[in-house]
Amino acid sequence: SGLTLGAEAITARCAFLAEADQLKRIDRATTLCDGSRQENSAEHSWHLALYALALADHAPIDVSIFRVIRMLLLHDLVEIDAGDAPIYAQTEASQKEIAQAELAAADRIFGILPASEGAALRALWDEFEAAETADARFAKALDRFQPPIQNLASGGLSWKRNGVGFDMIEARVGATIRRSVPLLWQHIAPRIRAVTGI
Amino acid sequence: SGLTLGAEAITARCAFLAEADQLKRIDRATTLCDGSRQENSAEHSWHLALYALALADHAPIDVSIFRVIRMLLLHDLVEIDAGDAPIYAQTEASQKEIAQAELAAADRIFGILPASEGAALRALWDEFEAAETADARFAKALDRFQPPIQNLASGGLSWKRNGVGFDMIEARVGATIRRSVPLLWQHIAPRIRAVTGI
Ligand SMILES: [Ca+2]
Repeated sequence: SGLTLGAEAITARCAFLAEADQLKRIDRATTLCDGSRQENSAEHSWHLALYALALADHAPIDVSIFRVIRMLLLHDLVEIDAGDAPIYAQTEASQKEIAQAELAAADRIFGILPASEGAALRALWDEFEAAETADARFAKALDRFQPPIQNLASGGLSWKRNGVGFDMIEARVGATIRRSVPLLWQHIAPRIRAVTGI
Repeated sequence: SGLTLGAEAITARCAFLAEADQLKRIDRATTLCDGSRQENSAEHSWHLALYALALADHAPIDVSIFRVIRMLLLHDLVEIDAGDAPIYAQTEASQKEIAQAELAAADRIFGILPASEGAALRALWDEFEAAETADARFAKALDRFQPPIQNLASGGLSWKRNGVGFDMIEARVGATIRRSVPLLWQHIAPRIRAVTGI
């Protein structure tokens, strides 16, 4: 139809995609594997989608990898307005503030798209945030699994920088991984213990 | 099975994913929309997958967006070994050399994965490179469509830097876009003409 296929729809989609470009400027606490610099949220999102592809065999049986990948491609767009909140620095009060900023960001950013398309992508983002479906829980698990892999590769660089120990990693990362794919947590827990030394 | 779900398979997949991290260090000729720095191939791959999601309504009817996104997530991994070859700098001789380096890179990088999984992802990369299927042609069209959008946003920064005019853009970029989605080329061609001034 004219609404989804006309020149106006292309213009809106290209405006959304140009807006998304700004995610490349949001730096995260985690470094690249070689420790040379911090990772940004755009390349992190790409890496997570690749994690979903490569680790698809480990997903619970009711998971749709395509839906997971769509969630992962979108999940950090709100950081363009709200910034990245390092997981080990969060408090209950800061989480509430962040959640509000992210909701406003989602309204604005998905609102750039034609209405029905924006609503569909926004629904995927809401589902990811709620972490109640099997797809969202697997996506969240990957979002928690990738940073420790980067950290282990760099000898625990950002854990040491931020004074993070095993118990905190287990509470803020391990629990979310284990809820979807216990095996992935079992795989890295002993390696994390060895690097954090506790 | 033990082959795809055991500890060895996880170790191989994590090694592949850690190897993929190096794509974040491969810089392309194109800059971010604001011209602040060159884009790297990892964040470029994320952006292309998002293009596929947002522009899915414009894909030819026989295209599978999930297959396209899988191709786009993988398509530049070979640059970890072979580097990025800016499209406007390529000659027939350089293209032959690049193609050989990329084949060797594909053998090495997909070879890190468990055999059947590596073969499946390698087949998607081969299909993308051959550009003969509808999925591969749509993926290629997006790979050619995104850089001009970045370039237009920055006032044609990397075209000016590299002395690239409209005819060259039409030949090396326009033709590939038009072959899959004529409307997308029609959308940007007049804007490119206005910026390149020819
Ligand atoms: Ca490339």
